[in-house]
Amino acid sequence: MIYTYLGPAGTFTESALLQIPGAADAERVPATSVNDALERVRDGAADAAMVPIENSVEGGVSATLDAIATGGALQIVAEALVPITFDLVVREGIESPAQIRIVATHGHAWAQCRGWSELNMPEAEFIPAASTAAGALAVLDPESGVDAGICSPLVAQEQPVTVLRRGVEDNTGAVTRFVLVRRPGSLPAPSGRDKTTVVIPLPEDRPGGLMEILEQFAARGVNLSRIESRPTGAGLGNYFFSVDTHGHIDEARMADALAGLHRISPDLRFLGSYPAAGEALIDVPSPARHNTDEAFAAAHEWIESLRRGG
Amino acid sequence: MIYTYLGPAGTFTESALLQIPGAADAERVPATSVNDALERVRDGAADAAMVPIENSVEGGVSATLDAIATGGALQIVAEALVPITFDLVVREGIESPAQIRIVATHGHAWAQCRGWSELNMPEAEFIPAASTAAGALAVLDPESGVDAGICSPLVAQEQPVTVLRRGVEDNTGAVTRFVLVRRPGSLPAPSGRDKTTVVIPLPEDRPGGLMEILEQFAARGVNLSRIESRPTGAGLGNYFFSVDTHGHIDEARMADALAGLHRISPDLRFLGSYPAAGEALIDVPSPARHNTDEAFAAAHEWIESLRRGG
Amino acid sequence: MIYTYLGPAGTFTESALLQIPGAADAERVPATSVNDALERVRDGAADAAMVPIENSVEGGVSATLDAIATGGALQIVAEALVPITFDLVVREGIESPAQIRIVATHGHAWAQCRGWSELNMPEAEFIPAASTAAGALAVLDPESGVDAGICSPLVAQEQPVTVLRRGVEDNTGAVTRFVLVRRPGSLPAPSGRDKTTVVIPLPEDRPGGLMEILEQFAARGVNLSRIESRPTGAGLGNYFFSVDTHGHIDEARMADALAGLHRISPDLRFLGSYPAAGEALIDVPSPARHNTDEAFAAAHEWIESLRRGG
Amino acid sequence: MIYTYLGPAGTFTESALLQIPGAADAERVPATSVNDALERVRDGAADAAMVPIENSVEGGVSATLDAIATGGALQIVAEALVPITFDLVVREGIESPAQIRIVATHGHAWAQCRGWSELNMPEAEFIPAASTAAGALAVLDPESGVDAGICSPLVAQEQPVTVLRRGVEDNTGAVTRFVLVRRPGSLPAPSGRDKTTVVIPLPEDRPGGLMEILEQFAARGVNLSRIESRPTGAGLGNYFFSVDTHGHIDEARMADALAGLHRISPDLRFLGSYPAAGEALIDVPSPARHNTDEAFAAAHEWIESLRRGG
Repeated sequence: MIYTYLGPAGTFTESALLQIPGAADAERVPATSVNDALERVRDGAADAAMVPIENSVEGGVSATLDAIATGGALQIVAEALVPITFDLVVREGIESPAQIRIVATHGHAWAQCRGWSELNMPEAEFIPAASTAAGALAVLDPESGVDAGICSPLVAQEQPVTVLRRGVEDNTGAVTRFVLVRRPGSLPAPSGRDKTTVVIPLPEDRPGGLMEILEQFAARGVNLSRIESRPTGAGLGNYFFSVDTHGHIDEARMADALAGLHRISPDLRFLGSYPAAGEALIDVPSPARHNTDEAFAAAHEWIESLRRGG
Repeated sequence: MIYTYLGPAGTFTESALLQIPGAADAERVPATSVNDALERVRDGAADAAMVPIENSVEGGVSATLDAIATGGALQIVAEALVPITFDLVVREGIESPAQIRIVATHGHAWAQCRGWSELNMPEAEFIPAASTAAGALAVLDPESGVDAGICSPLVAQEQPVTVLRRGVEDNTGAVTRFVLVRRPGSLPAPSGRDKTTVVIPLPEDRPGGLMEILEQFAARGVNLSRIESRPTGAGLGNYFFSVDTHGHIDEARMADALAGLHRISPDLRFLGSYPAAGEALIDVPSPARHNTDEAFAAAHEWIESLRRGG
Repeated sequence: MIYTYLGPAGTFTESALLQIPGAADAERVPATSVNDALERVRDGAADAAMVPIENSVEGGVSATLDAIATGGALQIVAEALVPITFDLVVREGIESPAQIRIVATHGHAWAQCRGWSELNMPEAEFIPAASTAAGALAVLDPESGVDAGICSPLVAQEQPVTVLRRGVEDNTGAVTRFVLVRRPGSLPAPSGRDKTTVVIPLPEDRPGGLMEILEQFAARGVNLSRIESRPTGAGLGNYFFSVDTHGHIDEARMADALAGLHRISPDLRFLGSYPAAGEALIDVPSPARHNTDEAFAAAHEWIESLRRGG
Repeated sequence: MIYTYLGPAGTFTESALLQIPGAADAERVPATSVNDALERVRDGAADAAMVPIENSVEGGVSATLDAIATGGALQIVAEALVPITFDLVVREGIESPAQIRIVATHGHAWAQCRGWSELNMPEAEFIPAASTAAGALAVLDPESGVDAGICSPLVAQEQPVTVLRRGVEDNTGAVTRFVLVRRPGSLPAPSGRDKTTVVIPLPEDRPGGLMEILEQFAARGVNLSRIESRPTGAGLGNYFFSVDTHGHIDEARMADALAGLHRISPDLRFLGSYPAAGEALIDVPSPARHNTDEAFAAAHEWIESLRRGG
């Protein structure tokens, strides 16, 4: 089993991948972009790719949403949630943030820890590093002049560095959602707490299009946990919607809702049914009696008996 | 084949029955009430019953709506439309309505021709007869003293009476709709211009109940041609709805709508799919592309292929 | 103040009228039909008319529904609920139902007590009377040969007759709803537990017409307590809907719903906002926060401030 | 009048600004970011800012959508559409793309012309410039070694450079939509072809929230031309929707829809009603009869007359 992921090593994406059973001992190949990761899966160079799909601060990760919505078919088989939190690691001899003069990290990490840094290490000058791991490693090199790095807990744990402070990010509580993507194949069995992801082109450029789509879910009591609009690239006003719902395609109400969607938007793309991560984060009510598998089966049998002639 | 119908002989119900191929040569037994006619079918004394179901002036025929909604299951296999029009028949020697002194007919017929009568035969006195046929026959009996009768065209045609005027009813254009009812059995094959009748109890005494029901039809592009509310007898505010729709249960959109109804109101009663009468009266649009049998079949196959694993 | 009501005296309609404060001491004129009663109000011969509108067994009273839906405008100002129950009154000397040989009452009353009668006074022969009061009075006339009458509790109480049994109706628990109708004028003030009645012609003969109507109520959280379809008389498939809702036109959500209805069906007829009767029978939830008068007022002010330019 | 815009000078944003009557002769101050531009308006340093809001390839411009959805209130008063097309400008002596060895432009422009470049000037090496204008100017400097620049038509026209080819972008037909933003004040008068932009937080994290929002528009026949979901930053699954609709708040159906939205999502933000740009691009149907100002006015008057007592 070969895994790829949005690199470099030590990012939150690798943390997400390590939540997958078996991934810690498998081959893990960093990719340079989401597209790169997905192409490796499509062409068989990797068996599965972990990529970010949704960020509690920035919203849907457009690169991922677009890359799995087009091109060769792919299938989401798992999801993972990773809290976005940063550690401050320091060279030997630094005992307080106020002593730090030079801090090295990736620009993205710096942007997310700037407020804390200005408050706690006002003298520190920021030096951009190729990755947060590279910044962290610089503190081990006496010649670098670097006093501190800001990196993910994974990097801090894997490298022989000293953590001075944990949680130095400005926006505490941020979470990124990642999905594990494979070539289409058999679906994960229903777990009772599943998500189903679909990509739905607006049937036409008409007013009620989106409402018709939402009604397919609402009419069967299928809840949405995420909806993102993305341009199709065919001109202003042309959208597709990327939607996460609670439920599994093996459940009758989900299958019925997807069948309804297929009728009004036949080019929709099914991206998988898979176990939901983050038990505490979602509270999925049981379906109403009339949306249970039993109700669907009873209705189906009734129709069949009528068609046979009572 | 034994037919029964809401009697007495010569009524519009018998006219409706005579529209059914073969009925003219079959045994036709008049019944004293709608309930009586339906019970004869239920207990096997007759094979089919013709009963009125909808009147363009008075609306749904409550006795029929209620009688087929409860009790032993029955199935509508045909419908017939009969224009409600009356003939004035007279004894020998009467050449103008103004000469008429005594007119005999059933009270119902008199009520529907009163305006015309007051205008055209102001001297005429009304004598109630047991049926319009009895009134018409009285003009043949010199001892009766009856100058004229008011009866249906069927009576006028079957008896040796002279028609002085046709169409003496006050409300021209009135039409009554009749249905032919049998014990449940094989369904008439789809004709391309069918109706389906169902009886739907309101799922609960809640605000949106009726709207949920209507949405099941609307979501599949199934048109309603009649909807009647009737009390269930269980107290104020408890209703069932008697609904006619365009389409046949063998069509996917109708089956899907009925299945949806079964889920939210499992006690609904299917009363049959049968060819629509009165070609000129209805204009049924073709279903939208996404509601055709083909769209349903394609959606079903797509779901099955996804469940099998792409 | 002159009241009229569907007579004759002693019927349940008069019982309903007597629930109206002041009616017991006012002039009460029985009318021969619902139409007669309403015409007396329209032409000024009476100030108000009490008529039945809904029956828990038979459903909407078509004569009333049709008569207030057309013709000169009228307004409902009150409603009353009357349990439909019958008393058995007997001549002197009768001590048990089994002794009764001849019972006199109106055909309607007999129809509703037939089961009880066959069981409890199997020897009794039914003689039709012009009214239940006439039947009851016959037991006071030794020459009539009548042993018993079946009448409403009001008749039994007002006449010097002996009640042998109470509640001899077959269908216990039946209730009829009556409305008090006046010429249009000022509305009863909101009581907090009101009903509003409207008559809504289906905007066109199109599939979604009824659903559009219901959505106007649903969108503002206005609950329906009764909906009846009635033919307009213009041909099969032409309906109007007679609808009772919970709320008063002085409440913003009701006014907004009615304004929405007026846009899609401008010929709708407002039949009044009036206090609901029968406290125990209805359970009206408070409107959701976004449907309160406050929410409407806040929204209105917001729009006005935007239009003025922020 | 002082205008600011997303700089640097010569970008498509300045082209958009120059479409505004009077802007060509007014002071135009480039800003370094969308936030910078909007802050200049908020704090009074500029009177209006032109910023990109929607891109036919990349979709909504997140920075703009987020920046006008929060912070001090702002108002859109105009929109502009600019085709995204690039010119190839060259130093003296270059007569064919194939001769070009070094091309200087901004990375964004290079990304959008890469396909054309690889095909038409396969020998060319890309050198990043601070802006497309800087790249274009480099060809005027004999010491720079730069053979060609890729820039917007505006830059090509304003600088003394030679255009060798027009339209060298890979994705022809791309259009970006820009909006002109001011501090809240009086609204542009209705032009008959207007747009209204609002920002609507999902009322709660519940299934039907988005559908309820869309129904407010649909129920009044208000068409949507753009809908974008954006995270609120408060955690996964918390969204607001940025919506463009056809119509003006001075029109009754728009005011009624916005009032409905205000009731279910009181924190929505009105971002203005303004004339639509790009006549050929939109085809707005006339409102249905029941959604016209006249229908709303008639409904309002009817309600008022009823409340006054008929």
